[in-house]
Amino acid sequence: MGLGVARKLIDSHLVSGEPVPGTEIGLRVDQTLTQDATGTMVMLELESLGLDRVRTEVSVQYVDHNLLQTDERNMADHLFLRSACRRFGLWYSKPGNGVSHPVHMQRFGVPGRMLAGSDSHTCAAGALGMLALGVGGLEVATVMTGEPLYVTMPRIWGVRLNGELPEWVSAKDVVLEMLRRHGVQGGVHRIIEYHGPGLASLSAMDRHVIANMGAELGATTTVFPADERVREFLRREGREDDFTELTADPEAAYDLTDTIDLAAVEPLIATPSSPGNVVPVREVAGADVHQVVVGSSANPGLRDFAVVAAVLKGRQAHPQVSLDVNPTSRQTLTDLTKMGATLDLIQSGARIHQAGCMGCIGMGQAPAIGSNSLRTFPRNFPGRSGTREDSVWLCSPETAAAAALTGRITDPRDLPRLLGIPHPQLRLPAGTAVNTGMLEPPLPPEQARRTELAKAPSIGSLPDFDPLPATLTAPVLIKVGDDISTDEILPAGARALPFRSDIDKLADFTFTQVDEGYPQRARSTGEHIVIGGHNYGQGSSREHAAIAPRHLGLRLVIAKSYARIHWQNLTNFGVLPLEFTDEADYDRIRTGDELTVEDPRGALRRGNAVIVRNTTRAQRYLLRHRLSPRQVEMVLAGGRIPQLRSALATHHQSAVHHR
Amino acid sequence: MGLGVARKLIDSHLVSGEPVPGTEIGLRVDQTLTQDATGTMVMLELESLGLDRVRTEVSVQYVDHNLLQTDERNMADHLFLRSACRRFGLWYSKPGNGVSHPVHMQRFGVPGRMLAGSDSHTCAAGALGMLALGVGGLEVATVMTGEPLYVTMPRIWGVRLNGELPEWVSAKDVVLEMLRRHGVQGGVHRIIEYHGPGLASLSAMDRHVIANMGAELGATTTVFPADERVREFLRREGREDDFTELTADPEAAYDLTDTIDLAAVEPLIATPSSPGNVVPVREVAGADVHQVVVGSSANPGLRDFAVVAAVLKGRQAHPQVSLDVNPTSRQTLTDLTKMGATLDLIQSGARIHQAGCMGCIGMGQAPAIGSNSLRTFPRNFPGRSGTREDSVWLCSPETAAAAALTGRITDPRDLPRLLGIPHPQLRLPAGTAVNTGMLEPPLPPEQARRTELAKAPSIGSLPDFDPLPATLTAPVLIKVGDDISTDEILPAGARALPFRSDIDKLADFTFTQVDEGYPQRARSTGEHIVIGGHNYGQGSSREHAAIAPRHLGLRLVIAKSYARIHWQNLTNFGVLPLEFTDEADYDRIRTGDELTVEDPRGALRRGNAVIVRNTTRAQRYLLRHRLSPRQVEMVLAGGRIPQLRSALATHHQSAVHHR
Repeated sequence: MGLGVARKLIDSHLVSGEPVPGTEIGLRVDQTLTQDATGTMVMLELESLGLDRVRTEVSVQYVDHNLLQTDERNMADHLFLRSACRRFGLWYSKPGNGVSHPVHMQRFGVPGRMLAGSDSHTCAAGALGMLALGVGGLEVATVMTGEPLYVTMPRIWGVRLNGELPEWVSAKDVVLEMLRRHGVQGGVHRIIEYHGPGLASLSAMDRHVIANMGAELGATTTVFPADERVREFLRREGREDDFTELTADPEAAYDLTDTIDLAAVEPLIATPSSPGNVVPVREVAGADVHQVVVGSSANPGLRDFAVVAAVLKGRQAHPQVSLDVNPTSRQTLTDLTKMGATLDLIQSGARIHQAGCMGCIGMGQAPAIGSNSLRTFPRNFPGRSGTREDSVWLCSPETAAAAALTGRITDPRDLPRLLGIPHPQLRLPAGTAVNTGMLEPPLPPEQARRTELAKAPSIGSLPDFDPLPATLTAPVLIKVGDDISTDEILPAGARALPFRSDIDKLADFTFTQVDEGYPQRARSTGEHIVIGGHNYGQGSSREHAAIAPRHLGLRLVIAKSYARIHWQNLTNFGVLPLEFTDEADYDRIRTGDELTVEDPRGALRRGNAVIVRNTTRAQRYLLRHRLSPRQVEMVLAGGRIPQLRSALATHHQSAVHHR
Repeated sequence: MGLGVARKLIDSHLVSGEPVPGTEIGLRVDQTLTQDATGTMVMLELESLGLDRVRTEVSVQYVDHNLLQTDERNMADHLFLRSACRRFGLWYSKPGNGVSHPVHMQRFGVPGRMLAGSDSHTCAAGALGMLALGVGGLEVATVMTGEPLYVTMPRIWGVRLNGELPEWVSAKDVVLEMLRRHGVQGGVHRIIEYHGPGLASLSAMDRHVIANMGAELGATTTVFPADERVREFLRREGREDDFTELTADPEAAYDLTDTIDLAAVEPLIATPSSPGNVVPVREVAGADVHQVVVGSSANPGLRDFAVVAAVLKGRQAHPQVSLDVNPTSRQTLTDLTKMGATLDLIQSGARIHQAGCMGCIGMGQAPAIGSNSLRTFPRNFPGRSGTREDSVWLCSPETAAAAALTGRITDPRDLPRLLGIPHPQLRLPAGTAVNTGMLEPPLPPEQARRTELAKAPSIGSLPDFDPLPATLTAPVLIKVGDDISTDEILPAGARALPFRSDIDKLADFTFTQVDEGYPQRARSTGEHIVIGGHNYGQGSSREHAAIAPRHLGLRLVIAKSYARIHWQNLTNFGVLPLEFTDEADYDRIRTGDELTVEDPRGALRRGNAVIVRNTTRAQRYLLRHRLSPRQVEMVLAGGRIPQLRSALATHHQSAVHHR
């Protein structure tokens, strides 16, 4: 039996464990990426760890999330990040250079390599035949120190693609079809590997679209082979030398399988407010639209903008629609401008914004309450747009363009009939405008060592957290339902994001999307417990969603199940994540109940079962944990930082001994 | 003796009074403009007044200030403004169409006409030989009902321009030279009229730069003649038919005079934090720069962007500099893109933002504390950038481009020597890309009457204010110094601007730039008094700076002198503005003192002298007011709204009688 691409990538990076689903493995990481919303904390972690210089092949810090600069903190963060890059030996991608995922793919992606990034959409690099995982910031900091990345070996899900997409249907519809079939938990504990003859018609950037939104399926990551389409992509980027073929063996076996006939995919749309609520566009056609936003790492390709420009060319956006265009990167905007598409967009009434994530992370572009906003983005969790009662839909660029013209949700296949618009025949330029002027390379070590970190007063330090107590007794402070995202635990967006470098201030936003009183209650209560449903902590990788509640006293979460990255983040900062073995226990616990875990040290070390007593209701629950022995010690120690600090100190000492 | 342009404009619009400096005159207004930051209040005023349809030739509502949309309120405001335009018969300029002043000049400006706008830079239209006044929102609402605009007849200041500007020096340096000579109070109670042979070398858009920042001199307005350069401008805009020549008589007399030799003007810069702190660039050359921002109504011309693009072409912005470009309008961005300049800017590392005011009104682009930011903007009042301890400098596009390349304040005349850059020879296109697709014309009356106002929950109503009491006794709640701007009384920017349609919420920002405790103190105190220095209320025209403190109980301001628009706004909302006759009395009054005005009705009606008793210190002060009899009645009635309501009701009745 042959091996698939995912398994080959794991095998070539395995440094500990066996690739048996459900067990912990350690992987050597070649590259890292961080973005500004998570990166300031990562740099504070590197400082806290006492790192001298990163030990990865390539580490890049992007500034793409918080570009509005509504107060002094944003730019202070940018200056701090630049100084940290210069100090620790990272590449620095300036504000305006673009969104991390496509830029990384264009400038640094190498087939066969492993990438860890403190952004949940890091998985997009799987489009190039990379093993690319979104993880918490502290994982990335750890990897930069030369440590392996520990993950639970997932099952590998081979999805065979047959045929070719019809007119007006594009890659976004393929991943929406996956979400329609399998929902936001469909990929949990899985790597999705696409294969089959349908691949030939999907460019590397089309694959990026599909790999990117694997995050919305909850997948550990998504991989594509490094084939001729990847070679073409790298050639266009002037990096054909970085190409290595990496394809599945002819009879590769997968743990699970599925098949998509591309020819049968139709325009799809995720209705408010989950990427999993997918229906055919025609089922909801006719609804009024006030905003259309094109951009984000979910539709970052030149073709994704060019197709919108081609549909709009010579026409005017509907008077009631604000058409917002967020170019992915300077490179994309340059290419678009050179080919005349920027001009077409401007003339059709598009608001051209700076290159970056913008409204995708709630930095501006918030719609009015109840106004339908169609976006080519990956996520529409409640409130993520910056509007509490928002009505955000996710769709392809074609569907977005159709709505921009008609002011209503419109199946793009109706454009020829409605407006006489033929399906655009795009002629994209053969080359691309590579320009690394906004990418600063790492400083040489000597010069780096002399660099001071530029810490403005708005940049805090990482709080220290204490070990787990001998007996844990605390009240349940909040109980939430299924699919609670990290946007709901710790919002991003224009209100909260400016405080991301100052945990104590940021903590005042914790859970306020679902319960405004939580921060104050937590501050007066201290140690406390959170009860969650299924898929707890889905979405963004931001570790602030673990650090901030931990700072407010969170010690224990009990949920039906967890999203991978948030679960890691909880353990990294010494919060114990337990799972119900009997889901009915979820209904028995109420907010305000006092729970006790006796001797958590002994219990966690003995095995996976943990007994929790509800002293308010005189009940006992049998819970389980999924921590590896390594992680047990980490949680007991109060998190990973104290562990790593001593490891690095040992490393430094042994390095000294060797001289 | 001949007449100048300003006097001709006044004479042709005079409906009451005599043009004697210091006396009140009434002027017929042909056009109005409102922007979104002031416009929502204007539309609420129209609603409150019960207006059916505007009675001006042209009224345009622009959306240019609050474009970030960090929460649902912004877009709700946009939808409300659009519905109000459709209801009351205004033009609506969509978000992304551009900044009001240049767009108005390009699409609606007509020599010889009078424009009133609820934005202090409305005076920019003086570039076309218009009489253009920035006034409070309620003035604009009043004018829309067909009432005259009442102003105090200013003195006319003829400024003769000789010669031609040297290389690397442009229109911005001319108005900075005026500010260097005369400071931010230099134009108070004056109309500046430029004349002389130097005009021939200044395009209509260059004149816009100079007229725009007449606001920073405190001038009532600025006028230029409508000459061949204006005809050229209108021809380029496809509106040569709108041209009428309007020039000064050969021996026109002016109340005051000054002369500028354009050939002797050098690159100038306003140092932090006042437009009046002007020095030659070479005096401050070498200071570190972290941000350069190009845009705003102060440098809106195609040439202002094209010159930056030409200097940067083929080069890269300095790594430590964020280069931000805010295109003035869709039209400018289209022209720039067609001529290749947008591409040059993108390739040099500029962050291209959407067309609008952006950082000029503190909507994003806030610099880090203490980081030098060079901007082609009109204002650098403390904190206006969104950063409390900001360091913002005002300069020409040439000086901005030089700093973008070197990372330091640099005299652009040094660019040939430092970087081998020759003075750019711009070749601007002969035509311009006129596209009115983002400008919605007024609806026909029948359809307008059927239109409902779209009022989201975030849109309040105008509070009602009661008449002045028989005896006014209240404590002094805050005492401020000279040149306090409306930015300091009621900040704009990303924090406060979203609440501009909700006075009660907005009021919590009142005076917080200078005294954080004021809103709470005012809410618990109720009726109270403010003491100010010279030029009280300079800067932006926003009437919220009168309405919000009035809502918190402000009844009386005593200052050494007032900025024109804010003084009007105070009277419009029933706040009594008095002036010291003995400036030493300013020093005698302290915060917390209780002051009494006995029988304000009698005192105001009898003459200009008002006695105020300080009961805390047993002192008496002789103060004066500058209110016309019309304004006295308005303040006594609690402001203009109640007056106008009854006037409109009478008008409606008489209209009914006529049928």
